[in-house]
Amino acid sequence: MDHLDHLVRGSWTPSGGGDAELPEHAAKWLAARTGFVARDTPAAPDSALAVADSALPDSARAALTAVVGDEHVLLDREARLGRTGGLSYLDLLRHRGGGEVTAPDAVVVPADPAQVQRVIEVCAAHGVGVVPFGGGTSVVGGVQALRGDKTSVVVLDLMRLDKLVSVDPVSRLAVLQAGVVAPEAERLLAEHGFTLGHFPQSFERATIGGFAATRSSGQASAGYGRFEDMVEGVRLATPRGEWQVGVSPASAAGPDLKQLIVGSEGAFGVITEVTVRVRPIPASDRYEGFVLDGWSAGADAVRALAQNGTRGTVTRLSDPTETEVGFALKGGWKMNAVRAYLRARGITDPCLLIIGWEGRTKADLTAARKATLRTLSKHKTVSLGQAAGAAWRHGRFAGPRQRDALMDAGVCVETLETATYWSKLDALRDTVREALTTTLTAGGHQPVVACHISHTYETGASLYFTTLVPRDLTDPVGQWAKAKQAACEAISTDSLGTISHHHATGVDHAPYLPREIGALGVDVLGAVKRELDPEGVLNPGKLI
Amino acid sequence: MDHLDHLVRGSWTPSGGGDAELPEHAAKWLAARTGFVARDTPAAPDSALAVADSALPDSARAALTAVVGDEHVLLDREARLGRTGGLSYLDLLRHRGGGEVTAPDAVVVPADPAQVQRVIEVCAAHGVGVVPFGGGTSVVGGVQALRGDKTSVVVLDLMRLDKLVSVDPVSRLAVLQAGVVAPEAERLLAEHGFTLGHFPQSFERATIGGFAATRSSGQASAGYGRFEDMVEGVRLATPRGEWQVGVSPASAAGPDLKQLIVGSEGAFGVITEVTVRVRPIPASDRYEGFVLDGWSAGADAVRALAQNGTRGTVTRLSDPTETEVGFALKGGWKMNAVRAYLRARGITDPCLLIIGWEGRTKADLTAARKATLRTLSKHKTVSLGQAAGAAWRHGRFAGPRQRDALMDAGVCVETLETATYWSKLDALRDTVREALTTTLTAGGHQPVVACHISHTYETGASLYFTTLVPRDLTDPVGQWAKAKQAACEAISTDSLGTISHHHATGVDHAPYLPREIGALGVDVLGAVKRELDPEGVLNPGKLI
Repeated sequence: MDHLDHLVRGSWTPSGGGDAELPEHAAKWLAARTGFVARDTPAAPDSALAVADSALPDSARAALTAVVGDEHVLLDREARLGRTGGLSYLDLLRHRGGGEVTAPDAVVVPADPAQVQRVIEVCAAHGVGVVPFGGGTSVVGGVQALRGDKTSVVVLDLMRLDKLVSVDPVSRLAVLQAGVVAPEAERLLAEHGFTLGHFPQSFERATIGGFAATRSSGQASAGYGRFEDMVEGVRLATPRGEWQVGVSPASAAGPDLKQLIVGSEGAFGVITEVTVRVRPIPASDRYEGFVLDGWSAGADAVRALAQNGTRGTVTRLSDPTETEVGFALKGGWKMNAVRAYLRARGITDPCLLIIGWEGRTKADLTAARKATLRTLSKHKTVSLGQAAGAAWRHGRFAGPRQRDALMDAGVCVETLETATYWSKLDALRDTVREALTTTLTAGGHQPVVACHISHTYETGASLYFTTLVPRDLTDPVGQWAKAKQAACEAISTDSLGTISHHHATGVDHAPYLPREIGALGVDVLGAVKRELDPEGVLNPGKLI
Repeated sequence: MDHLDHLVRGSWTPSGGGDAELPEHAAKWLAARTGFVARDTPAAPDSALAVADSALPDSARAALTAVVGDEHVLLDREARLGRTGGLSYLDLLRHRGGGEVTAPDAVVVPADPAQVQRVIEVCAAHGVGVVPFGGGTSVVGGVQALRGDKTSVVVLDLMRLDKLVSVDPVSRLAVLQAGVVAPEAERLLAEHGFTLGHFPQSFERATIGGFAATRSSGQASAGYGRFEDMVEGVRLATPRGEWQVGVSPASAAGPDLKQLIVGSEGAFGVITEVTVRVRPIPASDRYEGFVLDGWSAGADAVRALAQNGTRGTVTRLSDPTETEVGFALKGGWKMNAVRAYLRARGITDPCLLIIGWEGRTKADLTAARKATLRTLSKHKTVSLGQAAGAAWRHGRFAGPRQRDALMDAGVCVETLETATYWSKLDALRDTVREALTTTLTAGGHQPVVACHISHTYETGASLYFTTLVPRDLTDPVGQWAKAKQAACEAISTDSLGTISHHHATGVDHAPYLPREIGALGVDVLGAVKRELDPEGVLNPGKLI
């Protein structure tokens, strides 16, 4: 079935260096699809950005210095400018001169959980806001350095909490400090033969603490679960003292308070250590591509895989538009030849399905793959073989770098995501696509709205949308803000879907949270916040 | 491998009728092991119990009647006496005249979620305590009709909330009212081809709402997950209005508030509806028994099964004492012949392992069983074949009835449970056994303390202890209360394990909860309670 290998090799996966330039074939395709005309709109130099003077009171600065040392209270322009926010399209636009950046008044870099605890107590005592900062990869404004009702705010950068504290190989548990970056966590665990198995697109920069604070979900969630499924314990620094939860793999001793901390986005405390479930590094893995005919057929197939327990470790279905975008941007794929090949096999509306399997042993992998193929055999499927799987895998973390290149060329490119139950999935996809398309078209530009399923459950699935549209150079912020607002309205009206499946709430989704959790839900979060953070210094303006 | 079938047939599984009498072989074994002398100590007739007059104010009674109708506000002695508490050994002792029963001032039986909401508002307005009551199977005092700081308390019996509200076969979701009893839930779902797969020992009487309120875990948890894993949504009646949570299979929109309601034991509100994940009824199942040599070898084997993903739907390992108790009580087993058979195969310290498999298809079951056997082949294991599996399965819900017979004969018999990570499992088992044995022996009676693992996870397992000891007829309540206290101390000191893996907190475990969740955890629960139940009328004295 691997006849197509030679047609689907190659992909555009900029490495983050100088090759992050929009390839000609991609520009040509965008022009045809959206009327896009390439323009050189590179990021403005940081020196062009206005940064207000630090408003941190001297007394607070002295108290923070007493805790972490003078060299770990950073007041210079570069340090502050580097922690103004996250990596959403609007964040990047702001850094390109498209809006005001909100720089913190200082960056504090504690050495360990004990110092984090003392930093928070100092901030609470001095009424200084505290924004916990890990990899800074939030795309929902989760680390924006907002002051809220305080007169100053510091970013608490967790980069020095970079240690693997302990490993319990019998129980398959590891204690990691919050600031450990994901690749480093994998490296440290690999020394003990273990993996965490958490590979979100932010993998290269995101941290363990960030994963827990935002209820992250990785590309291998079908095999390893969401991050909250991996968390066995949390150590939290709060203005009222340290709080440690998690004593056993499961419990009926009241509500699961761990699940109240996981996803609290720094509003209840700063996560300093996470006890995670780990697994032995798999002996073998294999990734393959398949094509199904149309969205409904594709969604039916991945639903069958999820519901009869024959999913791979990775399961990712692109809709026809995303399949086209993939063909177009990757370029190495011989698009017309592939289409002809598929048409000859009865596929007129191709949807790319990537499946990855992992196995403790080669035999396990073979058995898992066989079970998947047995399910797929009941759905009209054409195999693209391992080359398509390898191409996806090679580019799996490259999205953010592709985005930089697209932005440089004058494209508005952003993603958003949601999830719902299977019976509402088509309605959710339709209404979000419609909202994005209508709003952006009304703004004068023709968008491409692509969608994929990358996280499946027995009862439902996530939807991840990528929008490409020529940037409105007059009001670039308003262009996307309006589209995003329309999408959020579509998602949250009548609770059609969750306002976020794995990006969290932050600033951007906070207005829509009450629809999802109800007025009482907001009140409960407020009550917990007041209990743990009576002065309201923690991550102002986020979550609630 | 089924040579042993003829040796392990038969079991003592009283049906709840007149056959709940201690068989002679069991009495003989107990005498040899504990010095037990059979005494006839049947339950006192209900007429012998003192029940105070109802203290429900007329105004509250009138308001409740206006909501549910006169015939659904029960004030008669029988109704009140039937809802004084749950089914713990101490609850049963109280009904045998061994202590004071706490009867509610009335039993209110609303018809639907809307009436539940209004009943709660009436109780909040009148300062009347409300104890939500499903199957009444709590063994931790969770439904004890305590007044707390109120002058009266009503039991809110959910028996009329007995409907399957809706089924979404595509998403595999069902909405069940809280009062649906588990066998009825299975019957209603079976009409749609589905099962919930939740089979705790309380199955015959317990309700959907009770499962959610207590974070229940069933015998098939390895295959179907704990009850909280099945809950997709909850409808909660609170003094501040209705609260509905759950819009998608997974979410990163802040903390998981569903997991704050699941396990809240009626202290935050009354669960009126639960949206559960359902699965197709399996096409086939198979149960088998195995014997391993000693606790450590057995625990190693079930750990391997859990960690390499080759568990069955049911996995249950008895320690040598429980294995002996099983042989002894069941009676039909030819104990000496079995022992000789096992000794000839190198097993001197038998630990019974029951494994059950289910499959969508027969082929799935065969594959799952083969994977299990492959793992077991690396551990010294003797198969007992399907007869041992069938015997366990036949008696799986009979424990409570066996207990009645043992109590009639003058035996103190009670269970308790906990869970921890694998590396601490042996220490936890040792310390709890030691605490129970030492305390009861000091009281003048020799106990039998048996233990099993019935819920396994990648990172740890549950431990379930059964204690049998001749009842102290002078101070029967004190005899067990002291033993239970010693066990709870052993479990909770230094967070060796959770104070409850699946029985919940109730009144009995509340004193130990702060050790597990910390002072801040208690404060957080208190803050949530005050937010949702400002008058403090909900389930007084439970959880917090």
